[in-house]
Amino acid sequence: MSIKLADYLFTRLRQLGIRSIFGVPGDYNLHLLDFVQPSGLAWVGTCNELNAAYAADGYARTNGLSALITTFGVGELSAINGVAGAYAEKAPIIHIVGTPARATQDSRALVHHTLADGEFRRFADMASHVTVAQVDLKDPRLVPDQIDWVLREALIHNRPVYLEVPDDMVDVLVDASNLPSVICIPLAPVTGHEPVLLGRILERIYAATRPLILVDGESRCMDILGDIDRLVKTTDWPTWTTIFGKSLVNEQLPNVYGVYAGSLGDPQWKDYFDSADLIINMGPHYSDTNSQNFTTIPNPAVTITLANTYIQIDNDVYRDTHPSSILPQILRNIDSSRIPRVTGPAKSVKEVNQLKPSDSITQNDFYRIVNSLIREDDLVLTETGTAAHGGRNMVLPQNTRLFGPATWLSIGYMLPATLGATLAQRERTNNPESRAILFIGDGSLQMTVQEISTMIRENLNVVIIVINNEGYTIERAIHGRKQSYNDIAPWRHAQALGFFGADDKPARQNYFSAWTWGELDAALRDKRIQNGTGLRIIEVFMGREDVQGALLRLMEKQIADEY
Amino acid sequence: MSIKLADYLFTRLRQLGIRSIFGVPGDYNLHLLDFVQPSGLAWVGTCNELNAAYAADGYARTNGLSALITTFGVGELSAINGVAGAYAEKAPIIHIVGTPARATQDSRALVHHTLADGEFRRFADMASHVTVAQVDLKDPRLVPDQIDWVLREALIHNRPVYLEVPDDMVDVLVDASNLPSVICIPLAPVTGHEPVLLGRILERIYAATRPLILVDGESRCMDILGDIDRLVKTTDWPTWTTIFGKSLVNEQLPNVYGVYAGSLGDPQWKDYFDSADLIINMGPHYSDTNSQNFTTIPNPAVTITLANTYIQIDNDVYRDTHPSSILPQILRNIDSSRIPRVTGPAKSVKEVNQLKPSDSITQNDFYRIVNSLIREDDLVLTETGTAAHGGRNMVLPQNTRLFGPATWLSIGYMLPATLGATLAQRERTNNPESRAILFIGDGSLQMTVQEISTMIRENLNVVIIVINNEGYTIERAIHGRKQSYNDIAPWRHAQALGFFGADDKPARQNYFSAWTWGELDAALRDKRIQNGTGLRIIEVFMGREDVQGALLRLMEKQIADEY
Repeated sequence: MSIKLADYLFTRLRQLGIRSIFGVPGDYNLHLLDFVQPSGLAWVGTCNELNAAYAADGYARTNGLSALITTFGVGELSAINGVAGAYAEKAPIIHIVGTPARATQDSRALVHHTLADGEFRRFADMASHVTVAQVDLKDPRLVPDQIDWVLREALIHNRPVYLEVPDDMVDVLVDASNLPSVICIPLAPVTGHEPVLLGRILERIYAATRPLILVDGESRCMDILGDIDRLVKTTDWPTWTTIFGKSLVNEQLPNVYGVYAGSLGDPQWKDYFDSADLIINMGPHYSDTNSQNFTTIPNPAVTITLANTYIQIDNDVYRDTHPSSILPQILRNIDSSRIPRVTGPAKSVKEVNQLKPSDSITQNDFYRIVNSLIREDDLVLTETGTAAHGGRNMVLPQNTRLFGPATWLSIGYMLPATLGATLAQRERTNNPESRAILFIGDGSLQMTVQEISTMIRENLNVVIIVINNEGYTIERAIHGRKQSYNDIAPWRHAQALGFFGADDKPARQNYFSAWTWGELDAALRDKRIQNGTGLRIIEVFMGREDVQGALLRLMEKQIADEY
Repeated sequence: MSIKLADYLFTRLRQLGIRSIFGVPGDYNLHLLDFVQPSGLAWVGTCNELNAAYAADGYARTNGLSALITTFGVGELSAINGVAGAYAEKAPIIHIVGTPARATQDSRALVHHTLADGEFRRFADMASHVTVAQVDLKDPRLVPDQIDWVLREALIHNRPVYLEVPDDMVDVLVDASNLPSVICIPLAPVTGHEPVLLGRILERIYAATRPLILVDGESRCMDILGDIDRLVKTTDWPTWTTIFGKSLVNEQLPNVYGVYAGSLGDPQWKDYFDSADLIINMGPHYSDTNSQNFTTIPNPAVTITLANTYIQIDNDVYRDTHPSSILPQILRNIDSSRIPRVTGPAKSVKEVNQLKPSDSITQNDFYRIVNSLIREDDLVLTETGTAAHGGRNMVLPQNTRLFGPATWLSIGYMLPATLGATLAQRERTNNPESRAILFIGDGSLQMTVQEISTMIRENLNVVIIVINNEGYTIERAIHGRKQSYNDIAPWRHAQALGFFGADDKPARQNYFSAWTWGELDAALRDKRIQNGTGLRIIEVFMGREDVQGALLRLMEKQIADEY
């Protein structure tokens, strides 16, 4: 039995749970796009390709996998920064590029969307730096296995892959006989060391006197979140996350503390960490920004690390045993009566300032106040900048997923990512009331603002909280506090909804602004914010140099250095 | 004598005529940005990095050279599609990337804006595909020569170059002794064949019976535009341009015909071309889109080609003799009395439809009507799509430069390019009344719309003519006439100026819309359009499938194939 290449590809994507594809049409991909909707997939055209990649990233983090279609050269290069971010922070995007017909490429014709030098391999070469596998679908005999291989690579590594589809290959027939077996991650054979490892882990658990659990961000895509939840509940041990790991455990559990911040955070927490004799460390991701400048990486001498491709206990590394295999075994074999009962440090109680309704809104108290808006099943997205720093301290209801920046930190990412994540959430839960709350600074908003129109077109329920502090305040904290390069052109956010195509009445009624706590309170209580639908904006004005936490220390250092 | 690295670099850029630098701040480039304004350069922060690259491209095409500063990883990859376009179509951008400090890179630390794998060379490797030279400024002893070398490469090739400045190198001292000699393109030694070549060219000129001159787009950066003008006037021979060459000769001269379109254009012109016995072909650029699908490339047997790196006469190629050297010699040595006087074909007279004021606006007549708006010294920019196709047929006043797409054809390019080009024009002419007119479709506008705010902030005089045909009409012509993937979300362009920060009154008064010829006429006559300043928008509504010329043939073919 045979099938057209495009039908084969899109059938595979459907089988893997993809419902929508993001991208931008271009003349080398138009024939391919003809096959999207007939195969039961929705086409979500975005305003530009970088935004499409960001949206696909958000979709992949929520759905487990996503697809992006761009055109050769211009389209794929516009998207490449978004693909790189998905590589850095593990979001598997299937990046499909419509390329010139094989005859055109073979003849080295000087066609448009090339550098007019007859060279067609440059862009694939560039993509190879930010994708884990690449295929160029040029021979029908190879196509089914190429597609299956590259999709499996994406699933295994949770990172983007790159497929080139020459324009004349779209409707060639390929063998369909692979299709009945759905692609999945093959199980690794059980290695001989697995029983030994299991025994060592259990022994360490039973012997612990000051244990803790640390959940890092790569856990998200290791298929272990359910088991982590069970481990946290079964042991009742003090549990923290990293910045990247936030929201991957239920923050409502009494033994879950929040984000561990090393010497920048609660000193009692740090004491507990420093004197721990067992740290169960899952999904590690050791970038400077995720590890508070490398200070929260657990001491290997007391740590059991469950990483995607290895398990480390003390200084012994076991390869080819996967956490998704060993963690269920731990839970099955553990003798609950032998789990040490421990008391963790006190939970941080932050001194709460009394806020007058007429006072200006400040970073220091803002996230605590706005925390009340978040309810179960919400998606919360906090863009790089003061929003991400503030979001770390919010306490989330259960089943609330938060996406914040970990390592790539490309500003502008979070708004299109919200588009993708919210769409995936709606599809996944089949709940038209699925909702997202995006916290974003005015500088970041300018980068990718046009996707507000795509959110409106897709009828997504999103509350955008725009923090207007007249520019790149996080950079003012780092360097150039008074430098004009950290300023931006002022916009009238009140007009955003109307400009981007919302109907007249919602465009007027769904915008709120707040300079004071009183105004913020009124906006948060408004029924359109609490129970409304569609896109809503709350613009919150804060000081140009208003920062808190670690950023405040940077700002203070800078001010001190000025004298 | 020594000088800080950043001061050395920016001094060199100033010496080469750069007055403004485009870019976006990021934590790896903030120290570098501290040096921009003190060195007498203006910092033009754009809303995102791709837009900064596009703006730098427009600036380079007007000014001859431009500079772009981005941050490591996220910033440079966002910009890379714009840099690639500048490579393809020859605009020399000095792309300066602020990178992590040397110690950070040497230690392979897993810092943010990397893929968290300790590899710092990926992005430079990617950049090497779209730049002609790359330097990493890591050793103060090498820095001055590295900078001078890379700048000379940009000048010679008229293409982008790539400089990495580690954060800790910004203020190290480097030797300043090169600075008094300004960087220039070295003269090539006169080769032995030059007198022979000159003789052959003159002989061919004197012997011609059906000669013509063809000016292609790479002439722009070959330092020969003055000599081309003299040649066109001296010979009085029939002269055409390619699409890319448009506006590089004075279209008001009686012997200048316009854009040669081969079999898609005037048949008499084609007859003349086909029977020509001498074609003087300057600045060739043979992409499919610039050569009407390779049909307008002159027959080499009758052609003298003056390219940037060679001169070809019949089938003999002379290397290392440059048009900027041989063309002045031709003009100096030519015996005017021996230049054949020839009569070219008739100029095309397009049948002019009578337009009723109440009729809808159509592509077919639109560009002829709006042509009246353009005046001497204007910049005219026509974005990829129907705008570029229409713009080819406009007749420009002298000293009017038009930028249209040639080969890269990245939609979204032209709006930020207008920002860069208009700024360069204002600086170059020192004329605050410098003005640009941008023709852009609604689909392209969505890609990079936020730079409207930068134009407003920079007080640039720009008239944006938005062609609203509800999506990607050029792609509807190519394929997918009725497919929804060629649609876009509808925006309210009337609110653009207000949203992007124009003062209230101009925001209301500087927007015009036209569905009919009568409304268009009124907008074009309005004193705010004719003599106003700042940013103005005319939104022109046209049919979703309304195309003309070559696009109309594509659309008609598609319709025919549907039956």
